[in-house]
Amino acid sequence: MRVASEYRLRRRVQFHETDTAGIVHFSWFYRYMEEAEHALWRSVGLSIAPRHATVGFPRVAASFDFHRPLRFEDEFEVHIRIARVGQKSIRYATEVTKDGHSVATGSLTVACIDKRPGAPFRSTPIPSEIAERFEVALPAPDA
Amino acid sequence: MRVASEYRLRRRVQFHETDTAGIVHFSWFYRYMEEAEHALWRSVGLSIAPRHATVGFPRVAASFDFHRPLRFEDEFEVHIRIARVGQKSIRYATEVTKDGHSVATGSLTVACIDKRPGAPFRSTPIPSEIAERFEVALPAPDA
Amino acid sequence: MRVASEYRLRRRVQFHETDTAGIVHFSWFYRYMEEAEHALWRSVGLSIAPRHATVGFPRVAASFDFHRPLRFEDEFEVHIRIARVGQKSIRYATEVTKDGHSVATGSLTVACIDKRPGAPFRSTPIPSEIAERFEVALPAPDA
Amino acid sequence: MRVASEYRLRRRVQFHETDTAGIVHFSWFYRYMEEAEHALWRSVGLSIAPRHATVGFPRVAASFDFHRPLRFEDEFEVHIRIARVGQKSIRYATEVTKDGHSVATGSLTVACIDKRPGAPFRSTPIPSEIAERFEVALPAPDA
Repeated sequence: MRVASEYRLRRRVQFHETDTAGIVHFSWFYRYMEEAEHALWRSVGLSIAPRHATVGFPRVAASFDFHRPLRFEDEFEVHIRIARVGQKSIRYATEVTKDGHSVATGSLTVACIDKRPGAPFRSTPIPSEIAERFEVALPAPDA
Repeated sequence: MRVASEYRLRRRVQFHETDTAGIVHFSWFYRYMEEAEHALWRSVGLSIAPRHATVGFPRVAASFDFHRPLRFEDEFEVHIRIARVGQKSIRYATEVTKDGHSVATGSLTVACIDKRPGAPFRSTPIPSEIAERFEVALPAPDA
Repeated sequence: MRVASEYRLRRRVQFHETDTAGIVHFSWFYRYMEEAEHALWRSVGLSIAPRHATVGFPRVAASFDFHRPLRFEDEFEVHIRIARVGQKSIRYATEVTKDGHSVATGSLTVACIDKRPGAPFRSTPIPSEIAERFEVALPAPDA
Repeated sequence: MRVASEYRLRRRVQFHETDTAGIVHFSWFYRYMEEAEHALWRSVGLSIAPRHATVGFPRVAASFDFHRPLRFEDEFEVHIRIARVGQKSIRYATEVTKDGHSVATGSLTVACIDKRPGAPFRSTPIPSEIAERFEVALPAPDA
C-alpha cells in the first residue's frame, strides 16, 4: 500500500493568473496549494472528490505569507507536506519556491464531512482507507 | 406574470480580473455575460440553477468580439437580450459598454438538459414555466 | 477630509465562484476581502492602484477561517475594518456574514512598496496623503 | 530557426475550475486555449509578453462550441494550430479532446499593438522576428 507524506508540484505561471501589478494575484497561491494537495492524494491512488463520494473535505482554514512575487511564465515549485492527521481533519504545510528561493509559505486545514444526501454540513471521522494513506512529514531541518 | 427580454447589469472592474497587460483578461467577459444572464433570470423570479433542479442549462456556444479594453475600477454595463427561444435552447446577444462606447459584443447559446439522477447529458424541452417567462428582444435600431 | 476605518460590501455569489462541491471555492474569499478593501479606499476618494502610481500595496499575508459554506446566489456581506496602520504596512480584519451568521473571518496585511521604474520590490513609508485617510477601527464588542 | 504551426497541451482539470453543475466552467476553455497559445510561442523560443515588450497581443475575438463536459481530474488535450498569420493579426483554431473525443472547438484572433509608453491602443505590423516563427497549419483531413 502506497503511503505519502509530501508532494512537490512543478508549475508555470499562466498569463491569466497575473494582475495589473505584473505579478501573480495572491488568491492564486491558495489554488496552487490545493492543486498540490490533490496531486498528493492522487500519488497514493486517491481522489479527494470522487463522483459518488460519501465524504468531502471542505477547507476550514488557509493562510499564506508572501515573500517574493511570481511573474508570467516563471517556473516554480509547490511543496506540500502533511503536518497533522487528526481524527476528523488534516493539516498541511506548504512552501512555494522559485530557483531555490522561498516565494511564500502557507498552511491549510481541511475537515472531513458527511456528504450523503440530507446529511448536515458537519465533520465526521476520516474513513480509515483514507487516513492510513497519509503520514506526517517533519519539516525540513532548516525550515 | 413577469416576462423579460433583456437586462442591464452595472458592474465595476475588480483588481483580480485584470492581467499583466493592465486590462481585464478576456476570459472575464464570458463571466460578465453569464452574470447578466442570471440576473435576467432573477428579474422574472427564476434561478438558473436551483438546488434540486430537474433541468440544467449548460453553455453550448459562446463568442465575443473585443473592441476596447477595460481597466481596474472602470464602471461598465453589460446589456444582455434574448435573441431566440427555441424548444430546447436559448440564445442571448450581449453588448458591453463603457461611457456609451462599445467595449465588446458577444453571444451565448445554452441548451436545456435533463438533470435527474442517471439521466444522460442530453438536451430536453425547456419546461413551459421557464420558457413562458422569456420573449425575444429585437436588437436596437442602430445595432 | 473623509477618513474611514471600515466598509461593508454587499455581494451575491456568482455561478463561476462555486465548485463541484456546490459551494463557493475558498480562494474566492480572499478576492471578496480584497474587493471590500478597494471599496474602502474608494470611500475616501482613493484608488489602491491608480494608473501612474509611485507606490503599490502588495499583499504580504492573508488568512481565513471558514465556518459555513456559501452557495450560488446567496447574498452576503463582507465587513472589513482597519486593524493597524503601521509606517509601511496596513492590516485589515474581515468578517463575512450571511443573514447575520458568521461565514468566515479573515485578516490581510499589505505593505507599501516603491513602484517607480527600476525601484526594487521593497517596502517604503506609506505616503501621508494615504495614511491620514485611514484610522483603526476597534473590533465590535461581541467579536 | 525553429518554426511552429501547432501545439498539443496536455492538461488535467483542477478542482477550482469546476462549478456547481459538476463540470468545468465554460470560461475556463478560453484560458486553456490561451495556455496552449503561450506554450506554442515558447516552443519557438518566444514569450508573448516579455517584461519590456514594445508590442502586445490583445485578443480581438474568441469563440467556442462545447460538445461534452469535462469533470474534476479529467485529463484532456488542447490542440492549437495557426489558421492565419496576417500583417497585424494572428488567428488560431483549437480543439479540446478527451480520450480521442471532441470536447470543444474554438477559435481565437489576436492583434498586434504598439506597447511603447504613450502609444495608442491600436494595431501595428507584427515584427518580422515574430511573424517568421509561425506558419499556417492546415486542418486535419477529418476536421
